[in-house]
This record gives sequence, structure tokens and C-alpha cells, in this order.
Amino acid sequence: MASEQVLLNLQNPLFQVYLTTASLMLLKLMLQPWMTVARMLKVSAGFRSPEDIKKSPINPNPVASQLEVNEYVERSRRMNLNDLESIPAFLVAGFLFVLVEPPLLLAQCLLWGYVLARLAHFFAYLTAQIHDVRATFWTLSSVSVLVMAGYTLWQAVAAG
Amino acid sequence: MASEQVLLNLQNPLFQVYLTTASLMLLKLMLQPWMTVARMLKVSAGFRSPEDIKKSPINPNPVASQLEVNEYVERSRRMNLNDLESIPAFLVAGFLFVLVEPPLLLAQCLLWGYVLARLAHFFAYLTAQIHDVRATFWTLSSVSVLVMAGYTLWQAVAAG
Amino acid sequence: MASEQVLLNLQNPLFQVYLTTASLMLLKLMLQPWMTVARMLKVSAGFRSPEDIKKSPINPNPVASQLEVNEYVERSRRMNLNDLESIPAFLVAGFLFVLVEPPLLLAQCLLWGYVLARLAHFFAYLTAQIHDVRATFWTLSSVSVLVMAGYTLWQAVAAG
Repeated sequence: MASEQVLLNLQNPLFQVYLTTASLMLLKLMLQPWMTVARMLKVSAGFRSPEDIKKSPINPNPVASQLEVNEYVERSRRMNLNDLESIPAFLVAGFLFVLVEPPLLLAQCLLWGYVLARLAHFFAYLTAQIHDVRATFWTLSSVSVLVMAGYTLWQAVAAG
Repeated sequence: MASEQVLLNLQNPLFQVYLTTASLMLLKLMLQPWMTVARMLKVSAGFRSPEDIKKSPINPNPVASQLEVNEYVERSRRMNLNDLESIPAFLVAGFLFVLVEPPLLLAQCLLWGYVLARLAHFFAYLTAQIHDVRATFWTLSSVSVLVMAGYTLWQAVAAG
Repeated sequence: MASEQVLLNLQNPLFQVYLTTASLMLLKLMLQPWMTVARMLKVSAGFRSPEDIKKSPINPNPVASQLEVNEYVERSRRMNLNDLESIPAFLVAGFLFVLVEPPLLLAQCLLWGYVLARLAHFFAYLTAQIHDVRATFWTLSSVSVLVMAGYTLWQAVAAG
């Protein structure tokens, strides 16, 4: 096993591909709530806390119905919850996977495969494609993380 | 403090126990949604998005009631949410804990203790044991992460 | 780029500030569910699973209404969900950010800025301040993570 001095280094292509894909997914994870915010402001609805219908500069004319579930806003919240079920696990699994030094090509396929599958999942969810389309992309992203975690476990146990 | 060259290495028992337990919990985290999927397919209910009652190969005879809350499916979703509240924190806390080089025995107890507590919590939740049983296992897992984070904070502040 | 031997070391001020702020946020993340538990016990309501209204030592006189949504408990759950949308991303983004060796002052501002913004957000949410106050602190914390992830992506791509 190479030293970490070599491993966690931007000159190491394995670490570089992880860092690139991980940063992209971090941005995706952090930007989804902004879509929720934008949708709440656009329809002035879909709020969740009782105090959100208090008069304020952003909400000058509050009405009680603003606390009702709003599908347009709720879709973005479901997309965010789906991110939460997947992206943090990807970020950690990818990092541990890189630490056990898999073949570069395998890492590139799994890490970029995950990014592409989540991108496709995002558009399928956003545009309300039928469940089977969304499920297919979700499956690809899930399998990518499962393979990385399984590979890491195998390496860890083999070294034990 | 040992160099990271020695630390983040599969030959280091401290890192090896972290990598093993972390991979196991990553697999648990990623497999719970598959239980939700399996339950949705089994009862053909408990869907969440309006488009999930569009006709598709997986759902050839859709009805509106498929969007109602289904307790059988919802239980798996609650288990998943509980995982999300705990496992990502465990994955990061365990990693940082290992980086500050705790005694090996302490690390083994906390890391494996967490895995066992979550395993017991999984079965308690799955089989709908009374709240007190589930709460006991949840408490053990929560305390394990709190101790790791507290130990890391103490080491970080002491070095500051 | 310095070697990781130097980087992931408590003597490195960059790593030390990350480890301190990350441990604090891990404690915050893990303690929020305890507030939910404390509130559930205090009002003996806001439970979520059907089995939670089975008679038990903690719940000796169960009634069906204990499964209804309780705003006092629900507020703590919303705070927890908000943590889940933000803290795991902060923990990973901060770590990767430190790995690409940003200027120390920038790291201190972003990492401590995040902690302070989340602390303020916590009190704003707890005391039900109007939405605009809570949103301001949330925005500061979100921007901090976005800057760290963006900086990391830039460094990773530049090295590619």
C-alpha cells in the first residue's frame, strides 16, 4: 500500500477523481434546499413552521394556507430527502474506497457513474417522469455506492 | 502522534477496525431503502410522488390509494430516517476519532458497540418491540458516537 | 502540497481548527435527537410508531392521541432534519477543503463562521423567530459550505 503522503494528494489521479466528484455532489446536496427556497418564494406557500406565517419583509401578507402542503415545493423537499439518503453515504464510501486503493478505472467508473446517475435522477424527478425511469437511475447510483462499500469491506477484512 | 502514513493504513489495527465497521454501516445505510422498495413492490402501495400512480411496467394497474400512507412501507422509511440521523455522524465521528489515535481497546469497544447496538435496534424496530427496547439500543449507539466526538474535541482543544 | 503526515496532524493549525469545529458540530448533530426525546417525555406525546402506545415502563398509561403530531416535539424534529440537511455536508466539505490546503485565515472564517451561524440558527428556530431571521443564519451557514465545496472543486479541477 502506498503511503498516504502519495495517496491523499492532488497529483494522485485516484484522489483527484474522488475530490472532483465529491465536490460536485456536495454542491448538488447544498443547492437542492435553494431550489426549495426559490419555489417557496415563487408560490409563497409550502411553509412548514407556525412562525412562517408571521408578517415579515419576505412574507408581508401572510395567510394560514401558506402552511399547507404544496406539491410544487414538496417535490423539491422529496428530492432533497432523496439526496440525504444517498449523497453523504457516497461521500464517505468514495473516500474509504480510495483509501484502499482500487484500480483507477474501476474508481473512475463508479465515481463518475454515480454522478451521472444522480444527474439523470435529478432530471427524472424534477420533470415527474414515471416511477420506473426514476427508479432505474436511483438503482444505478445505489449499486455504485454498494460496490464501493463492499470492496472496502472486503479489503478491510482481508487485511484483518 | 504517528504519521498518517502509518495511521491510514490497513496494517494499522486502529484503522482496520474503523474501516471494517464503517463499511458495514455504509452497507446497512444503503440497503435500508431497498427494504422500502421491496415492501412497496410487495403491497403495491405506500408511494409518495403523484407520478407514481401513472401506468408503467412496474405498476400496470395504478389506483389513487397507492399514494396513501402505508404503515408496512412507512416502518421501513422511519428506519431509514433513523439511520440517516445516526450513521453519517458515526462514519465521520469514527474517522476523526481514529485520526487522534485513541487506545485500540476503546476504539474497538465504541466502534463494534455501535454496530451491535444498531443491529439490535434494527431488529427491535423491524419487529415493533415496545418503545423502551428500541430506545435502549438507540441510546447505546448514540452514546458511542457522542463519546467519540467528545474525545476528538478534547484532543483537538488540548492540542490548540 | 505538504505531505499528509504534516497535514492530518493536530500540530497543523489548519487541521486543528477543522477537528475542533467538526467535533462541535458532531455533538450538535447527535444531541438534537435528545432534545426530541426530552420533549416527548415531557409532554408524553408526539410519538411516531404504532408500538409506542403499547404499555411500557416509560409509557405506563398509553392513549391513542400520543401518536398525533405534537408541535412542541415536531419543532425539535424539524430542527433535527435541518441539521441533517447541513451538518454531514459541512463535515465532509470541511475535511476535503482542509486537504487542499486553503489559507488558514479563510479556513478559520468559514469553519467558525459556519459554527456561529448554526448556533444562531438553533436559537432562532428554538424560539420561533420570524422566518427571515432563521433564513438569514441558514443562508450564512449554507454559503460557508458552498464556498468550501467550490474551492475544493476548483483546486481538484486545476490539478487535473
